Amino acid sequence: MARAISLIEDETPGAAALIRDIFPHTGRTYLIGVTGPPGAGKSTLVDRLIAESRKAGDTLGVIAVDPTSPFTGGAILGDRVRMQAHAQDADVFIRSMATRGHMGGLARATSDAALVLDAAGKSVVIIETVGVGQDEVDIVRTADVSIVVLVPGTGDDVQALKAGIMEIADIFVVNKSDRDGADRMVTSIESNLALQIFAEGEWRPPILKTEATTGVGVPELWDTIRRFRAHSEGARERRLRARNEYRLRDLLTHRFMEHIEKEMLGPVEFEKLLTRIAAREIDPYTAASDILSKVMARKS
Amino acid sequence: MARAISLIEDETPGAAALIRDIFPHTGRTYLIGVTGPPGAGKSTLVDRLIAESRKAGDTLGVIAVDPTSPFTGGAILGDRVRMQAHAQDADVFIRSMATRGHMGGLARATSDAALVLDAAGKSVVIIETVGVGQDEVDIVRTADVSIVVLVPGTGDDVQALKAGIMEIADIFVVNKSDRDGADRMVTSIESNLALQIFAEGEWRPPILKTEATTGVGVPELWDTIRRFRAHSEGARERRLRARNEYRLRDLLTHRFMEHIEKEMLGPVEFEKLLTRIAAREIDPYTAASDILSKVMARKS
Repeated sequence: MARAISLIEDETPGAAALIRDIFPHTGRTYLIGVTGPPGAGKSTLVDRLIAESRKAGDTLGVIAVDPTSPFTGGAILGDRVRMQAHAQDADVFIRSMATRGHMGGLARATSDAALVLDAAGKSVVIIETVGVGQDEVDIVRTADVSIVVLVPGTGDDVQALKAGIMEIADIFVVNKSDRDGADRMVTSIESNLALQIFAEGEWRPPILKTEATTGVGVPELWDTIRRFRAHSEGARERRLRARNEYRLRDLLTHRFMEHIEKEMLGPVEFEKLLTRIAAREIDPYTAASDILSKVMARKS
Repeated sequence: MARAISLIEDETPGAAALIRDIFPHTGRTYLIGVTGPPGAGKSTLVDRLIAESRKAGDTLGVIAVDPTSPFTGGAILGDRVRMQAHAQDADVFIRSMATRGHMGGLARATSDAALVLDAAGKSVVIIETVGVGQDEVDIVRTADVSIVVLVPGTGDDVQALKAGIMEIADIFVVNKSDRDGADRMVTSIESNLALQIFAEGEWRPPILKTEATTGVGVPELWDTIRRFRAHSEGARERRLRARNEYRLRDLLTHRFMEHIEKEMLGPVEFEKLLTRIAAREIDPYTAASDILSKVMARKS
């Protein structure tokens, strides 16, 4: 698993062949996405979920997503240190991931890594993403269950709710709920939910309070995940489809750009075009149209 | 300006024509990017920077970027309310932006909106992004100066530093610096910076403490921005080029996907392909290769 994921991270040509080979053997893992702002205590919570999941007899894969930092040369070790409790457990595979800053590269590598763990027979895969950006949201949105972890005490609940992660939650967790403002945060989420209309029988995202460091509220969270899983069994195919669609779109655009830069224009021509844009001889829209019409013109 | 930005937000065909027309008149604005995690007090800080900038005789455009929330139907009004102090000032144009969740759409719309304000003669444009995702980082990274706002008291400094925004900062701001943990946060950033080697004469990102609500530290921040501007005059062309490159890549991939979905395959064929992937008859890599080879095969 570790070697396969390294192939993927390094974007080696072998990675595509690998995914091709394992793809027919995927689709059985239950994918849990955990996201939220930095400092929400996601890693500690994931650590607790691993324990619950093991108790239930699952085998686990965990992918912790860290944007590259040149200060650390990759993923910060914090998560791993925290999850060391499970380091000796052969049925728990934990991996931190980082990219080299390529647009969309992180989401691509993460979903491919999840496929590896899926094919390897892990019954549950947890993806933990820090941050609230589009990429991170896309990773978690297409999971089988999306858990949004918030934390009280940032002093500005509205700011936290602005993060664009409200709409993807199947389950809300207010972690560090022993802190001041936990109830206020619950009320904020609640009043946002109150603006939505839920059909009869539709899942209404519950709001749970946890203290990941002590474990308070974690069994209830695990139970809620199980309830959501049972409730959404019929909708699973749709999530899987969204995941595949995201992957297909990402692969298409990535490979298209590679084609343009490495084959069609080449790096020199691409740079020349940028110089012309810089000199304002041509605008980016016209430049894009020119390149595209070259690709399309060749079709006849 | 408002109408032009609405054209861009709605992704109307007129938007491309508009950018084409105004592009030769752009490149004069000084673009200030402000980012950081939710709750860091960015909007209040931007509000203070507006005041400093006005004192210095600038005319201003401000773009506050909010990911769409279905709860609010778009941008939350908080920022606007906060910035109301400048609402009567004809030389300050403030706009909140939201997208409909399209991948990359937000970054595209934001840079186009900045071009509009640039062409309209605003001498300074401030882009404030919430969040720490790739899109948000890309928006701010290519600004003329990138300001990363952090906040003490999230209880876990390592988490905050994980956000992938450390590397893009020209200036660090520890806001709400009257709070416990402000000095610890400064030390954390400082020890991260200590790992980097700065050449003689190279800009070393300073760390400033501010209290945006009272204005403490804001004049010093403004002064630092001016110093950075003077220091980096020679490197401006490189930033502008990175901005254009980002824009060109984004336009190319966006239009390529439109071509595939609307013309080459059409929505029905695209859906059929997704169904085949869901049935695991074909893997996403092979599907992507098939589509791309169709595009490429047509060239001969």
